[in-house]
Amino acid sequence: MGRMTLDVSLDLSVDVVELTRQLIDIESVSLDEQAIADAVEAALRPHGHLEVIRHGNTVVARTMLGRGERVIIAGHLDTVPVNGNLPARLEDGILHGLGSVDMKGGVAVQLKLAAALSEPVRDVTYVFYDAEEIAAVHNGLGKLGAERPDLLEAEFAILMEPSNAVVEAGCQGTMRIEITTVGERAHTARSWMGVNAIHAAADILTRLQGYVPRKPVIDGLEYHEGLNAVFINGGVAGNVLPDECVVTVNYRYAPDRSEQEAAAFLRDFFVGYAVVVVDSSPGALPGLSLPAAKAFLDAVGGVANPKFGWTDVSRFSALGVPAVNFGPGDPLLAHKQEEHVPVEQIERCEQQLTRWLTPGLTEGGVA
Amino acid sequence: MGRMTLDVSLDLSVDVVELTRQLIDIESVSLDEQAIADAVEAALRPHGHLEVIRHGNTVVARTMLGRGERVIIAGHLDTVPVNGNLPARLEDGILHGLGSVDMKGGVAVQLKLAAALSEPVRDVTYVFYDAEEIAAVHNGLGKLGAERPDLLEAEFAILMEPSNAVVEAGCQGTMRIEITTVGERAHTARSWMGVNAIHAAADILTRLQGYVPRKPVIDGLEYHEGLNAVFINGGVAGNVLPDECVVTVNYRYAPDRSEQEAAAFLRDFFVGYAVVVVDSSPGALPGLSLPAAKAFLDAVGGVANPKFGWTDVSRFSALGVPAVNFGPGDPLLAHKQEEHVPVEQIERCEQQLTRWLTPGLTEGGVA
Repeated sequence: MGRMTLDVSLDLSVDVVELTRQLIDIESVSLDEQAIADAVEAALRPHGHLEVIRHGNTVVARTMLGRGERVIIAGHLDTVPVNGNLPARLEDGILHGLGSVDMKGGVAVQLKLAAALSEPVRDVTYVFYDAEEIAAVHNGLGKLGAERPDLLEAEFAILMEPSNAVVEAGCQGTMRIEITTVGERAHTARSWMGVNAIHAAADILTRLQGYVPRKPVIDGLEYHEGLNAVFINGGVAGNVLPDECVVTVNYRYAPDRSEQEAAAFLRDFFVGYAVVVVDSSPGALPGLSLPAAKAFLDAVGGVANPKFGWTDVSRFSALGVPAVNFGPGDPLLAHKQEEHVPVEQIERCEQQLTRWLTPGLTEGGVA
Repeated sequence: MGRMTLDVSLDLSVDVVELTRQLIDIESVSLDEQAIADAVEAALRPHGHLEVIRHGNTVVARTMLGRGERVIIAGHLDTVPVNGNLPARLEDGILHGLGSVDMKGGVAVQLKLAAALSEPVRDVTYVFYDAEEIAAVHNGLGKLGAERPDLLEAEFAILMEPSNAVVEAGCQGTMRIEITTVGERAHTARSWMGVNAIHAAADILTRLQGYVPRKPVIDGLEYHEGLNAVFINGGVAGNVLPDECVVTVNYRYAPDRSEQEAAAFLRDFFVGYAVVVVDSSPGALPGLSLPAAKAFLDAVGGVANPKFGWTDVSRFSALGVPAVNFGPGDPLLAHKQEEHVPVEQIERCEQQLTRWLTPGLTEGGVA
């Protein structure tokens, strides 16, 4: 965005940890991903077994081996803003720095696999996209899905979002609603002339306190819903009975519910009030019963957890592609100043995905 | 304030309604009272029976007859901002315009009495003060009390605030407090990791809903307390459990309670929460059992109502001077664009106060 683009390059022959370090040191805050996208593209172009497509600051690289099955391995190139946490620093087996968790370790794994695996058992589409950390309208995966859906055709997708190197399947949906109580203004010195809209919100907050979360089990994974007021605002002046109070509620719901079902639940829960939906993103079913997912799960140790947060797996789900999160790093450290990742997790992700994609390899085969 | 001061003058020989019209047409928004204060001072100076003292834009005029009793008749010269409601307009016995209610009708009555009554049965101090409609720090009556308390010595005071020409005695106190609930932030996708401070406010609002107002009878007047949330604010982000919610509550309390007792009541009512007092003004007892007040009440028809709102009578009360509100105009129309007053009320106030201050006059004596 007007700043000089530095000439940066990536060396895919180094190990996955050193490659993560190189990626961290290429600053790539959302909307400023040209340098890192250029470096990724330049590093992949020499590999003859890959078709490389550039789409804005998103880079797609894919094998075209005519396998009976195609999988996607995707990760975003951008980070949240720099916060005194660059350059990368490796200390006692822990790599520190902006993006170490979210999610340059995962991107390094993608790059290593793309370069190394010239004949994977499944065709692979590697997607490196921009602008995941900001408003959805900028999201590179979203744009690709809208403009080049052919590039996202696959049986299964892995999103390398941090999940402590354990499969997190599906994702919960999120819906934000507003409920407004209405009163009648009056001077507080003559309060019996009016109706206090803030007092009327007691009922809404009491219902929220009494909410018991649903915890459905889907494909063996226990989800955990949540219903929370995230904002409350009311008041006109220090001597006036307020005539309006707005409670904003965020509902996080398990992926066995559609957006329509989520909205119906909320209308029922808040019966007597007008429920206005202000924001909605559907969940994604884990899809762990599908053959490609089963094979993947076996290759990575057979353990999966539910994903509570909303991630771009839902975008794949909307395209009809079942997807899971699987990447190095603790998601609770994402976006934190002190973000850091055990290098063991990065290495383990690389090994397990290599095993999944390489014929005849057994446990530890690439260790 | 930098604008040209127009040469305006008042003619005290016209009737009280015409004088009100003249006063309305001298624009006197708070902090811009020099022109009207000049006109009031100039109109009073020629009357030899008055000692006239100028104090900023406050004008004091008083008889010095050595009567055994002194009373104050006070009114403020300023208005709220102009709102397309100037100049004054008289139509079908109703005078319209900014300040017609709050409170140039009352000021006209003061001026007429001051000029006409050279030998009242009680010594009278007429106070015309500035800056009542804005922050208390500017209040001309407050400044006079602080800098020239000798000018406010009296047995009884009448504040000519609009009260439909019926005595409103005492005034309720007002106290504003903040109560803060505390929670613990967490991502809404994992809400069981945190504590929602907005939900915790349900208890506070439920207590407010259950509040039963006290209605003590003092000097025969029934007061009516009120306890109302006037603001509520909480929320961090659309996907974060809020860790704080602040409820601002306004307590209007009858004048048999001191500020200390009001605060104690609130601490008890909200037991379990820290109550932070952010604003407080004490009430004022009606004082109708005092001889000067009784004589006044008899002269104006014997009827008094409690004053629910807070007015400057409380300033007199703090100086040890019992005070009542008594002035033309409906207080519910004060500060409204369409403010207007029946001229009959202005005339009645003038007649009744004249009767109270004039020896030997009987009902209708000045009609």
